[in-house]
Amino acid sequence: MVENSTFRRTYSLLTRVNGASPQEIVAPDYFEVLDWSPTQDDMKEYVLLVFLTLCSAKPLFHPSYLTLKNMMLKDMEDEGDSDANNSLFPTREPINPFFPFDLFPICPFGCQCYSRVVHCSDLGLSSVPSNIPFDTRMVDLQNNKIMEIKENDFKGLISLYALILNNNKLTKIHPKAFQTTKKLRRLYLSHNQLSEIPLNLPKSLAELRIHDNKVKKIQKETFKGMNSLHVLEMSANPLDNNGIEPGAFEGVTVFHIRIAEAKLTSIPKELPSTLLELHLDYNKISTVELEDFKRYKDLQRLGLGNNRITDIENGSLANIPRVREIHLENNKLKKIPSGLQELKYLQIIFLHSNSITKVGVNDFCPAVPKMKKSLYSAISLFNNPVKYWEVQPATFRCVLSRMSVQLGNFRK
Amino acid sequence: MVENSTFRRTYSLLTRVNGASPQEIVAPDYFEVLDWSPTQDDMKEYVLLVFLTLCSAKPLFHPSYLTLKNMMLKDMEDEGDSDANNSLFPTREPINPFFPFDLFPICPFGCQCYSRVVHCSDLGLSSVPSNIPFDTRMVDLQNNKIMEIKENDFKGLISLYALILNNNKLTKIHPKAFQTTKKLRRLYLSHNQLSEIPLNLPKSLAELRIHDNKVKKIQKETFKGMNSLHVLEMSANPLDNNGIEPGAFEGVTVFHIRIAEAKLTSIPKELPSTLLELHLDYNKISTVELEDFKRYKDLQRLGLGNNRITDIENGSLANIPRVREIHLENNKLKKIPSGLQELKYLQIIFLHSNSITKVGVNDFCPAVPKMKKSLYSAISLFNNPVKYWEVQPATFRCVLSRMSVQLGNFRK
Repeated sequence: MVENSTFRRTYSLLTRVNGASPQEIVAPDYFEVLDWSPTQDDMKEYVLLVFLTLCSAKPLFHPSYLTLKNMMLKDMEDEGDSDANNSLFPTREPINPFFPFDLFPICPFGCQCYSRVVHCSDLGLSSVPSNIPFDTRMVDLQNNKIMEIKENDFKGLISLYALILNNNKLTKIHPKAFQTTKKLRRLYLSHNQLSEIPLNLPKSLAELRIHDNKVKKIQKETFKGMNSLHVLEMSANPLDNNGIEPGAFEGVTVFHIRIAEAKLTSIPKELPSTLLELHLDYNKISTVELEDFKRYKDLQRLGLGNNRITDIENGSLANIPRVREIHLENNKLKKIPSGLQELKYLQIIFLHSNSITKVGVNDFCPAVPKMKKSLYSAISLFNNPVKYWEVQPATFRCVLSRMSVQLGNFRK
Repeated sequence: MVENSTFRRTYSLLTRVNGASPQEIVAPDYFEVLDWSPTQDDMKEYVLLVFLTLCSAKPLFHPSYLTLKNMMLKDMEDEGDSDANNSLFPTREPINPFFPFDLFPICPFGCQCYSRVVHCSDLGLSSVPSNIPFDTRMVDLQNNKIMEIKENDFKGLISLYALILNNNKLTKIHPKAFQTTKKLRRLYLSHNQLSEIPLNLPKSLAELRIHDNKVKKIQKETFKGMNSLHVLEMSANPLDNNGIEPGAFEGVTVFHIRIAEAKLTSIPKELPSTLLELHLDYNKISTVELEDFKRYKDLQRLGLGNNRITDIENGSLANIPRVREIHLENNKLKKIPSGLQELKYLQIIFLHSNSITKVGVNDFCPAVPKMKKSLYSAISLFNNPVKYWEVQPATFRCVLSRMSVQLGNFRK
């Protein structure tokens, strides 16, 4: 009786041998990559396999096959675009007509592979396919049924740049799963069942998306050494303020954080001080306090819509003097937040669907016109109990055009 | 009372003006792109807007802002990879420090924009954001609540290369929605509620994914003129054999088609003759007839697992002499399909979980060993009623190694 795992290993080995370049075959770390310490018997078998593959593969290179394959690869390129340096997908996959191995099957069954991209979405896969070519730059595994990332699932994929695992059933990621993917920049784990952000993520990450999982905590070690993490999207997780461990973002220069649809009751004070954008909509935040923004001096965009904010403490907005866009719609504000008139660069403020009863003539614009550096391009005030006919026209004297103000309650 | 649409237009115009390059501003087709025939009043307002933007924007270029922004863009690049030509995402976004306009807000609120990629997934959006920068190459709008693509949603995005609309609530796509996106190569529409493949897709498409929608029909005009469509994934749609109109694939050179999880009762005869891969698993196919593969002479991979196939007519496999991999697992086959021994390049055949009662010594391998050009790397036979001890070892004489055969019923 032949064991299943042996079968799988052979199948995988064969496909990898078939897809490997000659250098890879002779490289000393080839066995290491396969996680296979060869015994002498294994070695014989391996040599035999290589020879057999060579023998069996050669006749496949009749011209029509190569022509077709080349044509396909060529056509998959981003033709007609001259700025090749600037392309989204690689455009110049070198095709060596003297490549001594069978080109097939270097692509997992049912997937599409081109230009170092492996597309395996919507295949009902319950595990990561074993025969992903070593030089792959992007793997798309979204919409499958993968429950677990095992230690060797991505082993040896040293060129891997983007990994898409959205919409699976992930509950576990092996702590060594990313040990060899040292170029991974974009990791998408949204819509899974992870209860924590995996530890030992590659330090190379620039973008992490882990929307709609079960993350309750950001541990102190999670982002340690991830100096180039710039985008973190972790909305729709049951994270509350106590879940963010002090120091979790120490030394990390994230520019864009989104923790919407979570359980935050106040603005977290431990986020990176480098933030340019902070999105916290659909939480349970009830007040904004004086110290809340003290750390986020560079903030330019702030999303606080759909919370329960009744009050924004006087002076708190003075901590974010460079802010250009603030969303406060769908809250419980009774008055226009104080200090707006001092935000020189504020261009967009959404205040619709609150409980604002009064709009003062100096609530938005400074008394001295020259103080304002950027005029407002959008102010929304509809769906508030304020009597609009009582708002003085001069209130909007620092606005680009009359169309920039949404005052009426037509959207009610 | 100010009208909402006017407000939206101004907001959009402003953001587009802010994000536009000087050439775009003076280009005569600028208004056309905005779908806005200017009246004289509009013109005045427009000139005013441009001046105001100029005035209000200039002071924003204090050094720290630019430095930070540049740093962010630089860090988002795919650093440490020398083969820049071969990158997945654009790596050299030119940043002109003398750019005369405000760089903000060129990115829709809540989205992340870098290197001409606009990421707006998981934002609960009910429509396509209006202020997508004109030079965008990829837009990711997956996991939102968009119900409709309107005529002007992507208007003017002439560099758009990839558009991801997976997991929305799309029921309608305006027939002119893609009129100006003439470089669109990859369109992902999976997991929506479209009842047909949109007409008037860009002729430039190389890949179309429309998995899990409500498509019942492929109309004759659908792919007309789409000469570079190479990958079509349209599984999990209620498509039956009558739904494929004759001539629907005329002149189209698709290499990879997947119509799994559909309502096919036989192998469609009208698919492109250029097919290299055909995946029809999880359908209701009950027999394979002599003529079924006649059109698909280049086929290399065939997926027919999880159907109801009881019989594969003698001689039908002879029509696909270049096939390398056949999946027939989970069907109702009573015997090994005839003609396998003549498929010189066949390396992988899955026959597990069928009703096979007998395996003959010449079912897999030719009588003359030299006839076989590629040895088998995987044959699966487990979970069949055949008595394994009655299968002669010589049956597998053209197999790479004993580990290539899964004979036992240990998976039962």
